[in-house]
Amino acid sequence: MDGFGEATAVTRVDDGRYEADLDAGYGISGALNGGYLMAVLARAAVDASPHEHPVSTAANFHRVAKAGPARLVVDTRKQGRTAASSLVTLVQDDRPVVDALIITGTLDPATEPDYAAGQPAGMPDLEECTDVRPPTGDSGFADQVDMRFDRTTMGWLDGQPSGRPEIRGWFRHRCGHTADAYSLALAVDALPPVALNLGAQGWAPTVELTWHMRAVPAPGWLAVHGTGRLLAGGWFDEEVEVWDTAGRLVAQSRQLARAPRAHS
Amino acid sequence: MDGFGEATAVTRVDDGRYEADLDAGYGISGALNGGYLMAVLARAAVDASPHEHPVSTAANFHRVAKAGPARLVVDTRKQGRTAASSLVTLVQDDRPVVDALIITGTLDPATEPDYAAGQPAGMPDLEECTDVRPPTGDSGFADQVDMRFDRTTMGWLDGQPSGRPEIRGWFRHRCGHTADAYSLALAVDALPPVALNLGAQGWAPTVELTWHMRAVPAPGWLAVHGTGRLLAGGWFDEEVEVWDTAGRLVAQSRQLARAPRAHS
Repeated sequence: MDGFGEATAVTRVDDGRYEADLDAGYGISGALNGGYLMAVLARAAVDASPHEHPVSTAANFHRVAKAGPARLVVDTRKQGRTAASSLVTLVQDDRPVVDALIITGTLDPATEPDYAAGQPAGMPDLEECTDVRPPTGDSGFADQVDMRFDRTTMGWLDGQPSGRPEIRGWFRHRCGHTADAYSLALAVDALPPVALNLGAQGWAPTVELTWHMRAVPAPGWLAVHGTGRLLAGGWFDEEVEVWDTAGRLVAQSRQLARAPRAHS
Repeated sequence: MDGFGEATAVTRVDDGRYEADLDAGYGISGALNGGYLMAVLARAAVDASPHEHPVSTAANFHRVAKAGPARLVVDTRKQGRTAASSLVTLVQDDRPVVDALIITGTLDPATEPDYAAGQPAGMPDLEECTDVRPPTGDSGFADQVDMRFDRTTMGWLDGQPSGRPEIRGWFRHRCGHTADAYSLALAVDALPPVALNLGAQGWAPTVELTWHMRAVPAPGWLAVHGTGRLLAGGWFDEEVEVWDTAGRLVAQSRQLARAPRAHS
C-alpha cells in the first residue's frame, strides 16, 4: 500500500464500526485537512456498502481533527440497488469531529456522458504552472501533495491579491498513488482558500463541504479550478471542479467557510 | 399565518422532537417537493437552535414523502457561538425519509458584501417571462408557487429541448408569504429539472441537495437561475442561484439527481 492508501486506511471492528490512525502528514497549520478526513470517511462508507464509489459526500466540520486514533461510525440510512446512503461520523475523544452524509454508488469507467459542459477557461498547461509552496505554517500537506499553481491566481502570496476569488492548479500525490475516488476527496479541498485573493488573511475553517464524484478519474495529474461567488458577513463559498487528463469532469464541490474580514 | 407558513409549521413535542402535517398542496406528480420538505426541516432546526437562519442544508432524500403526519428528530451535533450543526431527520412510518445536516447561524440583513460576483447573464425581465404551467401530472405545486419562466429555456415543453441544461424563472408564493429563509429552501428546488432541456424525460428524483442561505432576501419576487454541468450514467447535477429584487445572491444550491437516459 502506498502512502496515501495507508494514511486513509480504515479497519473494520464490527458492523458499521471502524478505526483509523490519522496521519499528521495531512496537517495544515496544525489542523488535519478536510479533504483528507473526507477520504477516510469515504473508505468506511464504501466498505460498509455494496457499492464501489462515494458518489456524494456532504460533510459538516465541527472540530479540528488531530493526528492519531479515531473511530468511525457508519449508520446506514437507506440501501438501494443504484445507491445507498449513510451517516458517517468521525469521533475523537468521544466527540463528533466530522459528520457526513455519504451516498455510495457504482460509476462505470466506460460511461460516455450524455451531456458535458466544457472545462472552465483559464487553466494554463502544467508546464506553465509553478510549485510555489503556500506559507501554511508547516510543510506537512505540501509534502504529500504535489501542486503546481497558475501564478496569475497566486498574487496573494506576494501581498497582491488579484481581487478575483480564483485559484487554479494541478494536483497529484507525491507517493505515486494513482488518482482514484479518494484522491478526489483530497483534491476538492486541496487549494488555498480562494478568499485569499480577496484580501482575506489567516485561517479559513470549512464549515460545510459537499462534493460529488462524477466519473472515475484517469491516472495522472488532476486539474483543480477553484472559484467563489460571495464573501459577506464572514461567510464565503468556494466551488471546485476537478478535471482529469482525459478531459472529464471527475468531481465538483462547494464549501461554505468562515473568513476573517477582508482587508483589501 | 399564511398558507406557506401553515404548510411548513412544526410543533415541538419534546427536546429535539417535532411533529408536522405535510401539505398535499406541495406535491408534484404524487411526491412532495424536496424544497418544501427542506423548509419543514429547517423550521425544526432553527427552533432547536439559538440562531435564526438555516445557513447551510445538506439533504439526502431516501424515500418519497407523503402528505399527512410526519415526525422530525433534531440531533444537535455542535453548538457554537457563530453557528450550530444538527442532523435533522424526517420520519414517516418509522422510516427515515429525509436526512439533513443543517447549520444554523444568524445573518445580519444590513451586511454589505466584501465581495459579490455578478448575477448570471440571461435572465429576462419579469414582464417578458410567461407563466406556463409545466405538465407535472397535477397542479398542486403550481397552485402554491407563482413562477414565470424565460421561454427560451422552456422549449422542452413543446418537444424542443434547447440542448442546454438551463432553466430560468421568477418565483413567489401565491399565498402572499413574504420571501424569507424558508422560501429560499423552496426556491432552490422549484424549477423543473434542467435535464429536461437535454431530452431527458420523466421523473428526476433528487438524491442529494445542498443549499446555502447567503443573505436575508428582500420582499418580492426571487429570480431563480438553474444550470447543470454533466449528465452521465443516469446522474446529473443542477445548480441553482436565487437572487432577490435588491440584486443580492440570497441562496445557492447544487443537487445530484437521477435521470432517465437522454433521448435527444
